[in-house]
Amino acid sequence: MATKGLDYSELYAKDLPPAAGPWEGVYPYNFTTGHGSPDLIPIDGFIESVTRALKREGRNLAVYYSNGGPMGNLALREFLVKKLRKYRGINVTVDEVMICSGSTQCILLINETLLEPGDTVITEMFTYAGALRNAQRRKANTIGIPLDDDGMRVDILESTLADLRSKGIRPKYIYTIPTCQNPTGTNLPMDRRREMLRISQEYGVPILEDECYADLIFDGEWEHAIRSLDDTNHVLHIGSFSKSLAPGVRLGYIVAPQGVMNQMLASKIDVGTNMVTPLMVADFLENNYEEHIETVRDMLHRKRDVLIASVREHFGPTVEFYEPRGGMLMWFKFPEGVDTSKPLEAAKKEGVIYNPGADWSADPKNHGSNYIRICYGLPSEDQIRGGIERLAKVFHQEVGIP
Amino acid sequence: MATKGLDYSELYAKDLPPAAGPWEGVYPYNFTTGHGSPDLIPIDGFIESVTRALKREGRNLAVYYSNGGPMGNLALREFLVKKLRKYRGINVTVDEVMICSGSTQCILLINETLLEPGDTVITEMFTYAGALRNAQRRKANTIGIPLDDDGMRVDILESTLADLRSKGIRPKYIYTIPTCQNPTGTNLPMDRRREMLRISQEYGVPILEDECYADLIFDGEWEHAIRSLDDTNHVLHIGSFSKSLAPGVRLGYIVAPQGVMNQMLASKIDVGTNMVTPLMVADFLENNYEEHIETVRDMLHRKRDVLIASVREHFGPTVEFYEPRGGMLMWFKFPEGVDTSKPLEAAKKEGVIYNPGADWSADPKNHGSNYIRICYGLPSEDQIRGGIERLAKVFHQEVGIP
Repeated sequence: MATKGLDYSELYAKDLPPAAGPWEGVYPYNFTTGHGSPDLIPIDGFIESVTRALKREGRNLAVYYSNGGPMGNLALREFLVKKLRKYRGINVTVDEVMICSGSTQCILLINETLLEPGDTVITEMFTYAGALRNAQRRKANTIGIPLDDDGMRVDILESTLADLRSKGIRPKYIYTIPTCQNPTGTNLPMDRRREMLRISQEYGVPILEDECYADLIFDGEWEHAIRSLDDTNHVLHIGSFSKSLAPGVRLGYIVAPQGVMNQMLASKIDVGTNMVTPLMVADFLENNYEEHIETVRDMLHRKRDVLIASVREHFGPTVEFYEPRGGMLMWFKFPEGVDTSKPLEAAKKEGVIYNPGADWSADPKNHGSNYIRICYGLPSEDQIRGGIERLAKVFHQEVGIP
Repeated sequence: MATKGLDYSELYAKDLPPAAGPWEGVYPYNFTTGHGSPDLIPIDGFIESVTRALKREGRNLAVYYSNGGPMGNLALREFLVKKLRKYRGINVTVDEVMICSGSTQCILLINETLLEPGDTVITEMFTYAGALRNAQRRKANTIGIPLDDDGMRVDILESTLADLRSKGIRPKYIYTIPTCQNPTGTNLPMDRRREMLRISQEYGVPILEDECYADLIFDGEWEHAIRSLDDTNHVLHIGSFSKSLAPGVRLGYIVAPQGVMNQMLASKIDVGTNMVTPLMVADFLENNYEEHIETVRDMLHRKRDVLIASVREHFGPTVEFYEPRGGMLMWFKFPEGVDTSKPLEAAKKEGVIYNPGADWSADPKNHGSNYIRICYGLPSEDQIRGGIERLAKVFHQEVGIP
C-alpha cells in the first residue's frame, strides 16, 4: 500500500516567505554577516563567569522569570544602565531596559506593536537588511533617505516628512543606525543627531535608534546616542551583545518609555528570554567590559586597515569607499551599471561570500546594486588578503572590474 | 517649557493585546506555571558540562549558526534523535529536528506557517492556555473536544471533523497533549493514539503533538508518541527541556517533515536560537539524562502524593480529580456553579497563587470555570501542605467550599 503523505502546502497561510533552502555552511572567505572573531571569544572568562553565576543563582533557573521578571535578567539590566550612562550619555533606570533575544527580537516587538499593513517607515537609503525585511513582511512601505559621509541627510529627512504630511501620511518611525552605520560605516555628527530629534518632535514620528555597533569605535571620539538628547520620549533605543561579545549569546536590549514597553511586553510571548546566558554575560561584562572591548576594537582596527590595503591593491581606484572609524563592515561602490549580484555564484565557487548591495537598500531598483558589503570581523588578516585577491579575480572575470 | 512627550498610543497597531501590568513577583505558595524544583537544578553538572563544551566549541560562538546551522545545535539534535528513538519510539534523523526557544516558539512557528484569520484549530476542551491564546491571537477559532480519564474523546473528534467537513471546513491541525495532558494529567492510551492518527489521515488534518511532559511519567509504563505510529507525515511533534531540566534553559524542539520545516525556518527570523545554553544542555544530557530524569520523577511522585493527601485533608470529598501517572500538575473539579476565579485575589493576599480553570478551557463560557489547575513542581512538600491549607480557608470564605 502506498504511503498516504500529507501535502502541507494545501494548509499553508497565504503570503508566506519563500521556504528556506539547504544551509550552505561556512565559506573559507566569509565577508557576510556581523560575525565576530573566534580568537576573541573570552573562553576562560566565560567559564569563570558562568561558574560563579550558576553557583550563586543557578537554582533560579527552575522558575520562569525569576532573575528579574519578564523584562529579563536584573544584573544585566543594571550593567546596561551603567554602561549606557557612561558610554552613550543615556540616563535611564532598570525599569526602562528590557533584555531580548538579540536586537532582532527588539525590532520584531516594535514592529508588532506599531506596524499595520500599508504603514510607512523611514530608514536610511542603505540600511540593515533584517530591519527592511521585517518591516516589509508586515506589509509596511519603507522610504530610504540618502546618506553622505556624515550619515543620514537630515535635510532630506525633513523635506520627506513634510511631503508625507502634505499627503496625510504620518510614518510610524525613523529607523537609524547613527553610529558605525550598517552598511556605510558612517557616523552621524552630534549636530545632525540634534536636528534629527528636533524633526522627530516636529513631526511626531519617533526615532528607532539602533546602536548595535556603538561599542566598536576604534578611531577618534564617539558621539553620544540620540537617546541621550531626548527628554521627550521620542527615541526607542536598541542595542546588542552580538558585536561586542558574540552573536552566539543571542542577547540584545531595548530602552523604551514604560507605557510602550508594557505594550511590547504583551507581545513578547516567548515566556522569557534565555536565562542561562544572561547570568554569564552579566558577570563577565561587570568584570571585564573595558578590557574586552579594547581588545575587540584593536582587532577590528587592524582588520579594517588590512581590508583597505587589500582592496586598494587588488581593485585599484575603480572602487570607492568611506573609511569607517569603527564597526566591522565596509561598503564598496563600483561604477554605475555594475550589478554586484552577478559575480556572487562564481565567488562562492572560489570560497568567497559577500553581500551584494541591493539587499541592503531601501530602494534596490534604483540604489545599491553597484555596491558590495564586506564584513571583516570573522576572517583573519590572511583570509582578508586572500579573499579580496580572489574576489578581484572573480569580479574581473564576471563584470570586467578591475 | 513643558516637555513635549510623544503619545505612542496614537501610533499603535490595531487589535493589540492588553498592555502588560507590573510583574507580581513570586508568591510563597506558587501553584501556577510549569516551574521546576530549585533543589533539582543540577548546578555542578551544568558547570561541568558548560566548562567542557565551552573549551571544546566556545570559539564557534563568534559565528552565527556555526554549531549546526539554522536548525540549531547539532549535538543537541543528535541527543534528541537517540532519546526520541529510545523513549518515544520515534525514528528520525537530525534533519527532521529543529531546536527552538522553548516549545512556545515551536507553536508560534507552526501557527505562523499554517494559520489565517478565520481558520479552525481543534484542541482538547481543557488545554495549554498558551496554545489557545496563540491561535486566538492569529484570529483562529478553537474548537474543544471533551476529555475523559483516557484523554481526548476520539469518537467526538471524528464526529466533530465530520460535521465540519459537511460545512466545508478543514481545520488546520488537531492540537493534543497526549502524555501527562495539561491540565488534566491524563494519558491517551495506544488504541486512541492509533485512532487519532487514522482520523487525521482520513480528514487530511495534521496532528500537532505536544509532548512537553512526556519525560515525567513516574508511575507505570509510558505510551509511545503518536509520531511513532506515523509514516505518512501527519504528525508535527514538539517537546521541551523546560520540564525535564529547567524552564530557564528556554529550549524546545520540533520534529517535522523537511518541506514544512523549511517553510517554518523561513519564518524563524530570530537569527538563530541561543547558542551557549545548547552547548551546556547537550553535554549534560548526553552524560546524565537517565540519572537526572529519575531524580525529577521521584520528586514529582512524592509531591503528587503530598498534594493529593493535602487536598483530601483540607477540601474533603467535594473536590474531584484524576490521579495523574506523571507530570507536574493536577486539575481539580469543584461543584457546578462554583466560579474558581472569584477567590484568586483573596488567595494572593494569603501568598497563594493558582490557575482558575476558565483560562485553560477552549470554551470558557461553558466549560472550566469550576476547575482549578495546581502545578506542584516548584513548591516544597511543606509549601504544598501549607498552601493547600490556606487555599481551602480562602475558598471556604469566598465560595463556601469546603
